[in-house]
Amino acid sequence: MDKYEEIIEYVLKKIKPSEKDLEEINSLASKIINKCKEKCIKNNLETEVILSGSTAKNTWLKNLGEIDVFILFNKSLDEKKIEEYIIKIGKEAIKDLNGIYRLRYAEHPYVEGFINKYRINIVAAYKVPKGEWKSSADRTPYHTEYVNSKINDYLRDQIRILKAFLIGCKLYGAEIKIGGFSGYLAELLIINFGNFMKVIEEVAKWKPQVYIDIEKLLNEEEAFKKFPYNPLIVIDPVDMNRNVAAAVTKTKFSEFIISSKLFLKNPSNKFFFKKKYKLKKIKEIIEKIKKEERNILAISFINKENKPPDVLWGELLKTLNGIEKFMNKEGFKVIKCDAWSNNKDCLLLYELQSLQLPKNYKHIGPPVFIENALDFIEKNLKNKDIISGPWIKGYRIYLEKRRKVQDVRKILIEKIRKNEVSIAKGLLPKILKGKIIEGIGVAHLCKNNIELREFIENFLKGRAPYI
Amino acid sequence: MDKYEEIIEYVLKKIKPSEKDLEEINSLASKIINKCKEKCIKNNLETEVILSGSTAKNTWLKNLGEIDVFILFNKSLDEKKIEEYIIKIGKEAIKDLNGIYRLRYAEHPYVEGFINKYRINIVAAYKVPKGEWKSSADRTPYHTEYVNSKINDYLRDQIRILKAFLIGCKLYGAEIKIGGFSGYLAELLIINFGNFMKVIEEVAKWKPQVYIDIEKLLNEEEAFKKFPYNPLIVIDPVDMNRNVAAAVTKTKFSEFIISSKLFLKNPSNKFFFKKKYKLKKIKEIIEKIKKEERNILAISFINKENKPPDVLWGELLKTLNGIEKFMNKEGFKVIKCDAWSNNKDCLLLYELQSLQLPKNYKHIGPPVFIENALDFIEKNLKNKDIISGPWIKGYRIYLEKRRKVQDVRKILIEKIRKNEVSIAKGLLPKILKGKIIEGIGVAHLCKNNIELREFIENFLKGRAPYI
Repeated sequence: MDKYEEIIEYVLKKIKPSEKDLEEINSLASKIINKCKEKCIKNNLETEVILSGSTAKNTWLKNLGEIDVFILFNKSLDEKKIEEYIIKIGKEAIKDLNGIYRLRYAEHPYVEGFINKYRINIVAAYKVPKGEWKSSADRTPYHTEYVNSKINDYLRDQIRILKAFLIGCKLYGAEIKIGGFSGYLAELLIINFGNFMKVIEEVAKWKPQVYIDIEKLLNEEEAFKKFPYNPLIVIDPVDMNRNVAAAVTKTKFSEFIISSKLFLKNPSNKFFFKKKYKLKKIKEIIEKIKKEERNILAISFINKENKPPDVLWGELLKTLNGIEKFMNKEGFKVIKCDAWSNNKDCLLLYELQSLQLPKNYKHIGPPVFIENALDFIEKNLKNKDIISGPWIKGYRIYLEKRRKVQDVRKILIEKIRKNEVSIAKGLLPKILKGKIIEGIGVAHLCKNNIELREFIENFLKGRAPYI
Repeated sequence: MDKYEEIIEYVLKKIKPSEKDLEEINSLASKIINKCKEKCIKNNLETEVILSGSTAKNTWLKNLGEIDVFILFNKSLDEKKIEEYIIKIGKEAIKDLNGIYRLRYAEHPYVEGFINKYRINIVAAYKVPKGEWKSSADRTPYHTEYVNSKINDYLRDQIRILKAFLIGCKLYGAEIKIGGFSGYLAELLIINFGNFMKVIEEVAKWKPQVYIDIEKLLNEEEAFKKFPYNPLIVIDPVDMNRNVAAAVTKTKFSEFIISSKLFLKNPSNKFFFKKKYKLKKIKEIIEKIKKEERNILAISFINKENKPPDVLWGELLKTLNGIEKFMNKEGFKVIKCDAWSNNKDCLLLYELQSLQLPKNYKHIGPPVFIENALDFIEKNLKNKDIISGPWIKGYRIYLEKRRKVQDVRKILIEKIRKNEVSIAKGLLPKILKGKIIEGIGVAHLCKNNIELREFIENFLKGRAPYI
């Protein structure tokens, strides 16, 4: 048995649900489905209630089992009605089984429940023929059907191993916060390549763009035209107009490549399991920042609205990039940046080459041949902040100016107030009420927040978990 | 009389040679020509000796009169022979007239002499039919002939005014050091546009590329193909394959535009006369550097070889740019730079945003999909200068590194020694023996050199003379 087989066997032992686990989850799933059916009949609804997701395909990982119940409504019902019904039926079903529930929001609201150790999602979709989608959830029953028609117990285990790898390397999840690989995408990769090791070997050879089309629904040329910006294109076997890997960012695509290369070179269990965070003292974090002369800037604010995570994370990442671009344009060099949120407290974290800009800088003026070139010169001759110039180089006019404000914090505050920084509209008022913190002050932010402390520490380390 | 006419009249009074000036220079020119003819006969040479340049065209400026004597040799003589003869004949002619002389070098050597207040150049060329040039000086007699056939006394004055404008704005001279407008080019501009004011009005409207072809020898499309990199194309009326404005740099082209615009808006005498330098004390220069927090770096060295100025300045400008590019690449931001030389002492002067780089910086690694991506990661994991990373962003691997050397002077010395900076071969040994000076130390360089002091002061001011 080679090293790879040894590791895979070990991982599988850890992550494969036992017969007892399977019985338990399936019996609970049946109860929920029956409850939902009962409620539908009571409401005179002609529906189909089915199990979906990883439980329906038996591709779930031990301790990570979730029960996805889909209620398929008649397509003549309008969206509002369906939203009302799913909330009502979902709530009652969970309550009847002594669980707790809350409402969550994706494209439509759905009911999330907790019964014993299991998370349950009760989701509405339309019962439509393939291709006549009314909402994105309508495809899910077809996904379940497709995958089940293609896999056997061997492939189920291979899928579990790949999912564990993606989880261990922080690549799992199609939500905007992650931008990674969904469970369905993992299943399709195994179906396409045949087993876990083959997936890893192929991924290690990937270069953008990668095109996978199991059912040969399109050709490469069409696919590249259809999805020009995705590094990875995996045509959905149930819908040739959909790229299952549309959520995968360039970064996650690249991380999958490099983690596959690393695993092939130095196989180890660590690729499959999340590292446990060893809590560090605030003092240690401060010491590290000081000793390494790190230039950290944090923008901390609170998002009180209960936005769907994909909405909030869309805003956070747009803002993270907008501020990064602004700072680079101003002359600060951003070394790296990242965002964190528990869906209420939000943090945008930056590391810069320097928190101060030099006193004097070169101001690039217009080319001499534009009409208002003289205006530029005359306006600036009266300016007291001009250190030298104007002079000409090539076709342009240049000046040397004195900077009034050199500190990144002060510049950011001023420019955000003047609306000169690209910030998501939904976050702007929150950021204006928030705090901007420089240097070691950042460490104090995570005094009472262990999750945030882990994030900040990982940021300072800046190393992917698989390296 | 409008403001422009008033100024032009005033300038003309100052710069137009008197009848007495003309008699004096022409009588001296005749003497030299006769002397040269005499010597040619003595040497059994069949030559033609002619007056050329601005004296021959009567387009010279008071106090700036030069006598260019061309000896036209039979085209069967080889270059070496001609060089011998011109040195011999030139020397003897100047000596016989009680002048002093020295040898100078362009494409070929020539004799420069001084008699009374006049500079004399005795230059060799071949007597060839138009178009059959053997050396670049062969065109000159044809230039003289062409211009004289096109101008009258009114145009002669207009040419003088334009030349004075070019001198006052530091745009005059086609040598590499200047990269500006030759006397012949000024003459052609007046011939083309009709008078000084028309030239200025047209230049104020220029945008690159500008195409002027008085004799309609080419068309625009051909000209742009023939001279794709010149902002200004002026087809030589005696040779359609030559751009008379080939030496004009983008900067000088732009400066001519902006000075024309400024003159039209605020006409004044100052555009026509070089400002006299008011000597400042070293202490004042030091005070200015300190007070304005200027970050100055100078590379000072000595060129002992007696190279032709165009050769030395070609090397100086190549090196000036090479070091600028290197510093920008390293992360220093060059605000401006300039070179100075008296043909022996040389100075490359830079102003930077900062003389120090920040301690930590982002190192950009390879894309994940190249073959040696893992080598890059593994090599760097052992590196003690890694502060954080490696991490992935987009398709690339990044690291944060600690800089060993932050000071521009130390970095430059190290990298010049390692031959990692683009420096003209001919200057490298001289620069290695030279000095690199930072900050106020630069001011001490010009303790005993007034010309250099003017250069440094103008550099600090950084303002074109016409602004």
